[in-house]
Amino acid sequence: MKAVGVVVEYNPFHHGHAYHIENARKATGADVVIAAMSGNFLQRGEPAIVSKWTRTEMALKGGIDLVFELPYSYAVQKADTFAAGAVSLLGAAGCQFICFGSESGNIEDFYHTYHFLEKHHEPYNYEIKRFINKGYSYPKALSLAFKALEPAENVVDLSLPNNILGFQYVKAAEKSGYPVKMVTIARKSANYHDQHFSSASIASATSIRNALFSNNADITKIQSYVPVHTYEGLMQYHHNFGAFHNWNMYWPYLKLNLLQLSPYELRVIYEVEEGIENRLLSLAIKCETFPQFMEELKTKRYTWTRLQRTLTHILTHTVKNEMSALNDKVPYLRLLGMTETGRKYLNQLKKDCPIPLISKRSSFTHQQIVTDTRSARIYAMGLPEQYRQKAIELEFKQQPIYIEDDHNEQKNKAI
Amino acid sequence: MKAVGVVVEYNPFHHGHAYHIENARKATGADVVIAAMSGNFLQRGEPAIVSKWTRTEMALKGGIDLVFELPYSYAVQKADTFAAGAVSLLGAAGCQFICFGSESGNIEDFYHTYHFLEKHHEPYNYEIKRFINKGYSYPKALSLAFKALEPAENVVDLSLPNNILGFQYVKAAEKSGYPVKMVTIARKSANYHDQHFSSASIASATSIRNALFSNNADITKIQSYVPVHTYEGLMQYHHNFGAFHNWNMYWPYLKLNLLQLSPYELRVIYEVEEGIENRLLSLAIKCETFPQFMEELKTKRYTWTRLQRTLTHILTHTVKNEMSALNDKVPYLRLLGMTETGRKYLNQLKKDCPIPLISKRSSFTHQQIVTDTRSARIYAMGLPEQYRQKAIELEFKQQPIYIEDDHNEQKNKAI
Repeated sequence: MKAVGVVVEYNPFHHGHAYHIENARKATGADVVIAAMSGNFLQRGEPAIVSKWTRTEMALKGGIDLVFELPYSYAVQKADTFAAGAVSLLGAAGCQFICFGSESGNIEDFYHTYHFLEKHHEPYNYEIKRFINKGYSYPKALSLAFKALEPAENVVDLSLPNNILGFQYVKAAEKSGYPVKMVTIARKSANYHDQHFSSASIASATSIRNALFSNNADITKIQSYVPVHTYEGLMQYHHNFGAFHNWNMYWPYLKLNLLQLSPYELRVIYEVEEGIENRLLSLAIKCETFPQFMEELKTKRYTWTRLQRTLTHILTHTVKNEMSALNDKVPYLRLLGMTETGRKYLNQLKKDCPIPLISKRSSFTHQQIVTDTRSARIYAMGLPEQYRQKAIELEFKQQPIYIEDDHNEQKNKAI
Repeated sequence: MKAVGVVVEYNPFHHGHAYHIENARKATGADVVIAAMSGNFLQRGEPAIVSKWTRTEMALKGGIDLVFELPYSYAVQKADTFAAGAVSLLGAAGCQFICFGSESGNIEDFYHTYHFLEKHHEPYNYEIKRFINKGYSYPKALSLAFKALEPAENVVDLSLPNNILGFQYVKAAEKSGYPVKMVTIARKSANYHDQHFSSASIASATSIRNALFSNNADITKIQSYVPVHTYEGLMQYHHNFGAFHNWNMYWPYLKLNLLQLSPYELRVIYEVEEGIENRLLSLAIKCETFPQFMEELKTKRYTWTRLQRTLTHILTHTVKNEMSALNDKVPYLRLLGMTETGRKYLNQLKKDCPIPLISKRSSFTHQQIVTDTRSARIYAMGLPEQYRQKAIELEFKQQPIYIEDDHNEQKNKAI
């Protein structure tokens, strides 16, 4: 069986994702589509609107065959670490292909860009440093440094978000040693950051989330913009757990932590660097809301997402020490869900999977999965009080989601 | 001017307290009554139902002339440390007398008891250890060891709560070096731990709190059981801050902390000893409410109050390191409020006060006052969201409460 991998967050799953899965299958002729999916906290340093289990169910009903959890240690990271984790996960899962969406849509151009930058390694790094010293954020410095090198034709525009991620996937794949072929598909219509619905059929995840939070969670409003299984999943989650997750519900906890800790103690947290601990502490005392806190915290030096990731690490109490052993290969494959086809593939994979394959949380331990479990429980604490305990217990109680291929019979559902 | 000191929590101020102040004044002929009052967290390891500012206002209107804050480091402690801090505070404030309520009511018996135990120092300690090794809590072991020595006549019954505290005051005064004379008054009617109203005029603080929390904070129900200024203070606080404080409102925060910390990190917290960290962590994951958590946590080995103090230290993030320099003398006098008479006394005290006298929080720093401020802010986090910020800022913004002696004109009120 041939497998193609995709790197996803599905926050939530939308028509654009379905389109991507369909095309990944077509473009590669794969029998199985495998997703490396972030858990409850995402690359932008935000809680996912619904749990990894509900998003797994959406994924399986939307065309994915196997969902593995990208560990927190890679999921809540800047693009290069995120990409290295995801690509190594899909490599370990035996994918012959990895297919990503990009603004460019031309895989040759990604390789040209990669080789161009490998060749101009030193001047590139020099320019990056120069722009960082000028006070630019890291991603902005990357983009400016790239332009400053006056790259040749046939390179991708590294100021566009999906091209940047794609470039990191290609780079990670080249360095991973896994025999995986990269494929890219041009993204259709809605842009990553679109704030509002722009067409009736393809809405960005951002615009869907905005609609959910701007209308006192009137879920019905988004019904026509998302696949039916997404709509059902959102309805079900809201019914079972009383809310969708966003940063506002964690603000009291974050504020408590910032009132509790000394600058010295705060520096133990991953990514708390360069004196930002003092700004965090003094702003926490005076800011009343999370948006106000973020506005005051923001400087040119740090991207919004970098800051949110740092705050996520404070909330989940992820310390430098537990991240010190991190390398560019994920150490296990945690199964979140599978279709019937996915299960067949899994039986084949079991024979020669290079890393442990976990389908039962209690049967395995590792520093990174301890971090995953801690962050999943803290994620649950954001819910209204009466739903918290049930959600905390999911991490050990929820079986991997299993659905038959015709999607009619579903054995293990998301709780 | 002659001063008598009292050690108080006023949670809340009731008729029994007014009776005690009146008698302390009469018994000693003092011109001024000075209170060493716990801040926002109390000796039993609980949040005070209303802030130290509102309780200060109640105290001043109830007959106290000067209120100083007993620092958190002494206030949330077992009886001997609590007593040493309070007695040294009142000594530093120039009190010639300290007057405490007791079941015994006979000060000579306290001195007999003290000298008896000093004389039988070694067998007493031997017996204490023996009972602790049998699995009894520390206070229970003290009481049993005392009985085992078959003490002579004219000693006080050290199994009664106010006698125990009184004994600790007498002991602390003997050791303090301050020329302070101890006085005791027999407590009238309502017992410390009475759960329900037992008479119309004197109700225990416990029964008042129970009434406040058991009736969805129907404050009017307690009106006839408390002094008018207590009733007004409670009404005012509930109006300004939206709630009375109890452990239930801090449970999500405590639970978050216990989900965040490793056993190793938890052992950094003051009083987390002897492997209790593992019980705390595993119970936090499975318990849904604070009462359930306490029920499961309780063992013969630890008193309820000792456990609650430990939980308070976790909540306020009070670490062993910041408590390591603690000795039996408070390092400053923080003024919370005064009457006109109190202010005159203060002007006299200023000339030869042995420790810094603080009336403005921002003008002074010390490890212990940092702990006080942190705990006051975390106390504020228990309030409903819209009241938190105002309450957090009290610690630096609130001026000491000042009221004229006829109680009609009040210059600085509790915010």
